[in-house]
Amino acid sequence: MEPIRIAIVGVGKIARDQHIPAIESTPAFSLAATVSPNHRGPEGIPHLDSLDELLEKGPAVDAVALCTPPQVRYDLAVQALKRGIHVFLEKPPGATLSEVVALRERADKVGVTLFASWHSRFAAGVAPARAWLSDRTVHKVSIVWREDVRVWHPGQDWIWEPGGLGVFDPGINALSILTHILPQPVFMKNARLSIPENRAAPIAADIDFADAGGAPIHMDLDWRQTGPQSWDIVVETDAGTCKLSQGGAVLTLPSGTEHNEDLEYPGLYSRFGNLIRGGRSDVDIDPFRLVADAFLRGHRQIVEPFHD
Amino acid sequence: MEPIRIAIVGVGKIARDQHIPAIESTPAFSLAATVSPNHRGPEGIPHLDSLDELLEKGPAVDAVALCTPPQVRYDLAVQALKRGIHVFLEKPPGATLSEVVALRERADKVGVTLFASWHSRFAAGVAPARAWLSDRTVHKVSIVWREDVRVWHPGQDWIWEPGGLGVFDPGINALSILTHILPQPVFMKNARLSIPENRAAPIAADIDFADAGGAPIHMDLDWRQTGPQSWDIVVETDAGTCKLSQGGAVLTLPSGTEHNEDLEYPGLYSRFGNLIRGGRSDVDIDPFRLVADAFLRGHRQIVEPFHD
Repeated sequence: MEPIRIAIVGVGKIARDQHIPAIESTPAFSLAATVSPNHRGPEGIPHLDSLDELLEKGPAVDAVALCTPPQVRYDLAVQALKRGIHVFLEKPPGATLSEVVALRERADKVGVTLFASWHSRFAAGVAPARAWLSDRTVHKVSIVWREDVRVWHPGQDWIWEPGGLGVFDPGINALSILTHILPQPVFMKNARLSIPENRAAPIAADIDFADAGGAPIHMDLDWRQTGPQSWDIVVETDAGTCKLSQGGAVLTLPSGTEHNEDLEYPGLYSRFGNLIRGGRSDVDIDPFRLVADAFLRGHRQIVEPFHD
Repeated sequence: MEPIRIAIVGVGKIARDQHIPAIESTPAFSLAATVSPNHRGPEGIPHLDSLDELLEKGPAVDAVALCTPPQVRYDLAVQALKRGIHVFLEKPPGATLSEVVALRERADKVGVTLFASWHSRFAAGVAPARAWLSDRTVHKVSIVWREDVRVWHPGQDWIWEPGGLGVFDPGINALSILTHILPQPVFMKNARLSIPENRAAPIAADIDFADAGGAPIHMDLDWRQTGPQSWDIVVETDAGTCKLSQGGAVLTLPSGTEHNEDLEYPGLYSRFGNLIRGGRSDVDIDPFRLVADAFLRGHRQIVEPFHD
């Protein structure tokens, strides 16, 4: 089977750190081009300044991975879907829920694959955690996601603008795991958002969710963490505690701890390849809906300004 | 066929002005009880202080209409659905999207009817507007929804709290019509929200949407309108202009203008009765999702304080 020819659109940090190496290590894909007005991709790979230019001049591609900021993703995705080109969306899948729903309807109508990716769901501990939790009764969940924004998002102004998500940009990774591993649907109850006085998006948030069985779920998000970073989810159940740490890579169950190699992006590309070969899409907006709910219903408090 | 015994939970302005008269005029229903810690319902109808008390002491009911502020609706709906009691949700159907989705899953699982009502969709001009637009190409839409909050929501503090929607409480009526009459899905592009410095929710908003065909849709919401009030939607198409005014009651097409009697709430109860008899639910969250998107992506500006 010929590899799927894919172009990366948006050659920022996540494209360089994750997408390009993952594509190069996945036999189902070949990297056909990179597209960005700012940054070039790897030596020897055709580079174009815009998706328009790629579609006009080639090289021909079967798929695109959209790694731009979310605010411009919808228009790019429509351009691709109109040409029958399969689309991989980095997370979050758009700047609004309604544009993702509109994309999903469009992809379904034209029979082209749309994949709204949630890389944290492919962290090594997540699938076994989901399996272990599938027949448990959940009593309580605690999520602590505290990191240093200056390390992980240096100079990324878009992330602080409306349509960027502020601290929910990492927080949505936790929510993508949560909604995947819990056996019952999750909904938001209350949120307190801390917004720097010079920014539009939160730098910290404290949120209460519940699952449909009534189990309380607390999430502590903070971008002001220096020193050790925390990406932990602890689920207390009728059969003991399930803990995912290091963003889902390390799983601790009553029976012991599993450490595994990080294969998130190779996992995503393997999934994307299977979706294309199978003629299907995968667009789950649950994590994004929970974030929208926090913006919809959250209490806002203004905190000290943030300077990069 | 025996009438469906229904209790109204939350006896505020909307219950007194609309629900009680509509139930009394709809043969499919009989008003079995009213429930509120604050306000009594009509003379001669059993009254309880809480839903707990109703479920414990009776009278027996087949359905409830939840007319409370949205912030408390989820828990009430769960209580009812657990007992196999059908649920009518006033708009907006909850305080968050995720709780409405969780309710819908629960209702489907137990086979009980859940109806997320959008009363404006039952305004007289809406069904013919939808039919007329179904095979048109939409070029442009303009929505102007300007009213005096002191007239329509006097002293309703909940509407200004997180989970109340501020000016989107009436604005969601316009969106419920928009999403019902346009032939293509709608998504949000930009929003500017004006928030009084002493309140959590917007008093005005200016929003750009588009439909999947790219037609621009502009919405102007303002709660500071004194004098004549405006509830107008103008849709320009390849076959001329469709205008809904007076909140959907009056329809003007190239062929002329239709005025019709307002039958919104009787229409809702007729629909709810049909859903119950047919064993189905009707939970469309599209209008609510667009509002969440405005909160998610909107630019906020602080404006002068609002005092009731």
